[in-house]
Amino acid sequence: MDKNKRTEISSLGEFKLIDRICAPFQSEQKSTVKEAGDDAAVIDAGDRYILLSNDLMLEGVNFDLTYFPLQHLGYKAVVVGISDILAMNGTPRQILIALGISSRFSVEMIDLFYEGVRAACQDYHVDLVGGDTSASVNGLTLSITATGDVEKDKIVYRSGANTNDLVCLSGDLGAAYMGIHLLEREKRACNGQPNPHPKFEGYEYILRRQLKPEARMDIIEHLAQNGIVPTSMIDISDGLASEALHLCKASDKGMRIYLNRLPIAKQTYAMAEELHSDPVVAALNGGDDYELLFTVPLSKQAEISAMGIDIIGHITAPDTGAKLITPDGQEIALRAQGWK
Amino acid sequence: MDKNKRTEISSLGEFKLIDRICAPFQSEQKSTVKEAGDDAAVIDAGDRYILLSNDLMLEGVNFDLTYFPLQHLGYKAVVVGISDILAMNGTPRQILIALGISSRFSVEMIDLFYEGVRAACQDYHVDLVGGDTSASVNGLTLSITATGDVEKDKIVYRSGANTNDLVCLSGDLGAAYMGIHLLEREKRACNGQPNPHPKFEGYEYILRRQLKPEARMDIIEHLAQNGIVPTSMIDISDGLASEALHLCKASDKGMRIYLNRLPIAKQTYAMAEELHSDPVVAALNGGDDYELLFTVPLSKQAEISAMGIDIIGHITAPDTGAKLITPDGQEIALRAQGWK
Repeated sequence: MDKNKRTEISSLGEFKLIDRICAPFQSEQKSTVKEAGDDAAVIDAGDRYILLSNDLMLEGVNFDLTYFPLQHLGYKAVVVGISDILAMNGTPRQILIALGISSRFSVEMIDLFYEGVRAACQDYHVDLVGGDTSASVNGLTLSITATGDVEKDKIVYRSGANTNDLVCLSGDLGAAYMGIHLLEREKRACNGQPNPHPKFEGYEYILRRQLKPEARMDIIEHLAQNGIVPTSMIDISDGLASEALHLCKASDKGMRIYLNRLPIAKQTYAMAEELHSDPVVAALNGGDDYELLFTVPLSKQAEISAMGIDIIGHITAPDTGAKLITPDGQEIALRAQGWK
Repeated sequence: MDKNKRTEISSLGEFKLIDRICAPFQSEQKSTVKEAGDDAAVIDAGDRYILLSNDLMLEGVNFDLTYFPLQHLGYKAVVVGISDILAMNGTPRQILIALGISSRFSVEMIDLFYEGVRAACQDYHVDLVGGDTSASVNGLTLSITATGDVEKDKIVYRSGANTNDLVCLSGDLGAAYMGIHLLEREKRACNGQPNPHPKFEGYEYILRRQLKPEARMDIIEHLAQNGIVPTSMIDISDGLASEALHLCKASDKGMRIYLNRLPIAKQTYAMAEELHSDPVVAALNGGDDYELLFTVPLSKQAEISAMGIDIIGHITAPDTGAKLITPDGQEIALRAQGWK
């Protein structure tokens, strides 16, 4: 290797970087079922699989404490971890959180963070089983490890979608992204003011989607009650487009998503209009939605609809690619974003 | 709670902060065996326990890339994770590493890091099963999740030490700490020089202990071959003093450690002399040793000695506290450091 060569990560992009990192590893352990590349790692525990995910949340990148209350951050940290377990059709069980803390933080601030962690652990019935802390030079660093388990015949990977399967989506998209744009606007407007009065009226929903996201455990439970095991699944943390592409790539399939079926909330439209931005871009590339994107056989259409879950498209042969279909029949290729 | 109250974390210290964080959590999941407070969390997997640890390593706090080669950092990240599993008498199985990367890092640099990760995974027969990456504002952030397993009757906690048990220690102490002082000295000496020639001759051992630590899987294997299950165990990542105190607190016991039995390497003494510092302080509070501190019944004395493991003291009643005994019979109370 040329020691002086420098390839910018931006020229590769997040997803190719992850492929590159994971490629050279060969499994040595019998208990390793699924290696890197899904929402969670899968470990054989005899009668069932144990699921494991690991997420980093960094101040200044993933959250801004100017407007993100610490309790909500603690809650969200748990949700982020749990969402990965749900995306494998698993039941979340335990959570470990390691904190890097700079001297800016007081004991009371850490207490507030853990109030949120505790509330989320209660809501989702998971146990906090690890609480490491270390000093940090700059700001707050969160590392979240989530565990869960699933019966072996119920596990769902990104890779199981079949041609003609229905593409299903819980909840709506783009609201969290519009929420953060509103928060950023009000942060700028209030900057330096002695008595700041941020204007949030009428936008409670998009703020809640950003500041207090929920993990869709209810969806996993409803699917199980209806005897439905999705053929593939992924959680939407980076926006619909990149997650849909992950699913297509892992399943070696194409996908058609219909633009007029994308669930977008009223407040998301209203905020987008106010900010002269495109709500569809928010839905496709916004991120932080923590909804579930999954596929089921065509025969499950009535049951899925009865559950109030949106069917936004269907799976196609691999050579057709992943496409967004506009109301007038135009086909637009989906593009991943990820960070650069 | 008084919203304006601010208690500095430094006034509480790392270990009381962790106690405070972990205290209010009640376990809800049947599979949660051991909650926060040991080297790893313990999850019931039917016929055995699964072990889980989570560590953060932050640039500028835990490593300095001026002198820490990226391959070595990748290797050390795996060692740090594995060491927690070994401290529970477990066999390491899988590792997940999440990276926060700033724009300073190129693809080639990340490749070097993963060369080290790969080498360590091969040496310790663990599988890398997760490879998340995210953008970071400042420097490199590593989150390491390690898994392992252990037969239920072989698990070792911090809490099982009995009065009169022997206190045993693998390897030697303080070398990694002296290694980092040497590296820092040469960094200052070479700062701004066009052709820096750091002086490392004669200090290869202490440099290796800092830059390429090993996890003591060999000790766990030897103990198993000799049919020895320690009564308590912990890995030494923060220095002997704080780990000994953790062990005493968890076991509700006291400890006597004999100063003249502390294993300290020649180069550690030599470097300490050069720097006018105390090698015993390095051994007690230096950190980064990744050795194992454990207790066994008195009856195992001959076998432990035959394995070449140092016996540095013994367990006493709780009311005697944790003491360091000098050659002239003085008793010095052990004090924890941790970060503040």
